[in-house]
Amino acid sequence: MEHAFGTAPRTVVGFDDDISAIKTLGNKLVVLKTDMLVGSTDIPPGMTMKQAARKAVVANVSDLAAKGVRPSAGLVALGLQPRLTRRDIQEIASGLSAAAKDYGFPIIGGDTNESRDLTISIMLFAIASKRRLILRSGARVGDIVAVTDEFGDASAGLTALLKEHLHHNSLSPALSRAVYRPRAELDLGVALGASGTLTASIDSSDGLAWSLHQLSQASNVGIEVNHVPVSKATREFATRFHYEANDLALYGGEEYHLVVTVKPNKFLLANKVARGRLLSIGVVTRKADGVRLRQAEGYSQIPMKGWEHFRGQA
Amino acid sequence: MEHAFGTAPRTVVGFDDDISAIKTLGNKLVVLKTDMLVGSTDIPPGMTMKQAARKAVVANVSDLAAKGVRPSAGLVALGLQPRLTRRDIQEIASGLSAAAKDYGFPIIGGDTNESRDLTISIMLFAIASKRRLILRSGARVGDIVAVTDEFGDASAGLTALLKEHLHHNSLSPALSRAVYRPRAELDLGVALGASGTLTASIDSSDGLAWSLHQLSQASNVGIEVNHVPVSKATREFATRFHYEANDLALYGGEEYHLVVTVKPNKFLLANKVARGRLLSIGVVTRKADGVRLRQAEGYSQIPMKGWEHFRGQA
Repeated sequence: MEHAFGTAPRTVVGFDDDISAIKTLGNKLVVLKTDMLVGSTDIPPGMTMKQAARKAVVANVSDLAAKGVRPSAGLVALGLQPRLTRRDIQEIASGLSAAAKDYGFPIIGGDTNESRDLTISIMLFAIASKRRLILRSGARVGDIVAVTDEFGDASAGLTALLKEHLHHNSLSPALSRAVYRPRAELDLGVALGASGTLTASIDSSDGLAWSLHQLSQASNVGIEVNHVPVSKATREFATRFHYEANDLALYGGEEYHLVVTVKPNKFLLANKVARGRLLSIGVVTRKADGVRLRQAEGYSQIPMKGWEHFRGQA
Repeated sequence: MEHAFGTAPRTVVGFDDDISAIKTLGNKLVVLKTDMLVGSTDIPPGMTMKQAARKAVVANVSDLAAKGVRPSAGLVALGLQPRLTRRDIQEIASGLSAAAKDYGFPIIGGDTNESRDLTISIMLFAIASKRRLILRSGARVGDIVAVTDEFGDASAGLTALLKEHLHHNSLSPALSRAVYRPRAELDLGVALGASGTLTASIDSSDGLAWSLHQLSQASNVGIEVNHVPVSKATREFATRFHYEANDLALYGGEEYHLVVTVKPNKFLLANKVARGRLLSIGVVTRKADGVRLRQAEGYSQIPMKGWEHFRGQA
């Protein structure tokens, strides 16, 4: 097999991280990411085509953000249902373009098909230096576990829509924003990645508990959570509709905050880089301790579970 | 926007060619390609999951082959119907792996989803030198138009299955191979690309007539076809079932031969590089002449049409 630069590229990050990467030249890595949005499972009631397209971009960018890497270019493969109107398709295109512009990369190509399920498959390309890429696998015992935002709004919002059957117009602003207009923490992730303060990082698109378990497995460590970061809007929703606020925050998904581990002597610097947005939620422990929650009454294990997709609701 | 190498990558090939490319470092281009296979429109009756997965890879590789570029790595995003069995999914995985191995690249990441329509979205990454990338736009008046194989087997095979309702076991070997086990001309495309003999190139996945029109538009030239390259098996099928063999060859699709334009004084060299596989089918003419067929009785225009997808047949 002939290759540019005379050598076969070597896979340095494979299926077990947020992104994939191969070595090409010197210390530069080519970073690739694909994430597919499927209408029947990823589009909640009330979401516009434009918002769905943006969400597809956000899900991809968020994984790069967690690695501290900016996208350089993107491709989009679309599967469009025959029943979509010209306006729907224009909305999708405009949502994709606007989101790509927001995150600073061009969409340089793609493929359009007919499908029985709306499909927006995005691929991002980026270049990173190997030294700077923050993987899931670098967490060490004693590191501080931190997040970039409070959790629960997306799962509270989806619960409101799908289990409580609230109309989308009656969601609180925070819940509505989390469900319909999620954002990827690209600037924050890149700044943190460049600061040299992180040891591991992951995004939280499968939920906080899920992300903690992924970090735990990849880094071969345990994680002790001493504070579940629950948002105010989630608490209010939980109280009103009788849910456990902690569960909404831990076992949600479709949120795009970053979950990072920080060298203990670098936390202040990291939080300065993050402009005060880091919330410490626990510490890295030995593998044998698992992923657990410390509360006044003692320890409990945090199971590896997350939000189940809302099949058939769209 | 911060970028590797300090400069924003510049898009050098966009939506109007088989692939997309951006400039990164010196004369090196990053080449990206995505093509999505959708079950309801791209999988003919009788095709196994393994064959479908291979076809998805072939469709992507073929576009790189037409540019003279080898893939360095691939990503796969899957949309899987809930009714697929474990065995179906294993077949898809094994078809993807085997095809990637055949074409010499690793699949380094992906995403798996539930969908109402089988979706196999592949993205390929490659590195090329700008000088060597054979675009659609380089054909010049007087160049020889050539193809790497005879046409018609895929459209004859699909016509047999979908219009004549033949069972897939009763297709002739050539038609069966064209429909179920298509191949991308990667080695041939790379060799031709490196030989410096081509001025333009495209694959024929949308049919020969379609490809000729794309070359014509991108290069701003006309094309005169003096010989329609129809395969023997297509002629036999056409005679038996009363189709026009020329039409099957011109207005087919799902074939992955290369359609190239060659500098007239380099045709012998090009054909040597291609080990005698180049078939001259015509010449590049002035734009005003359009894409036309020269026969004993005179000229006729070749319309820009191709095979219509077989929606709802799978």
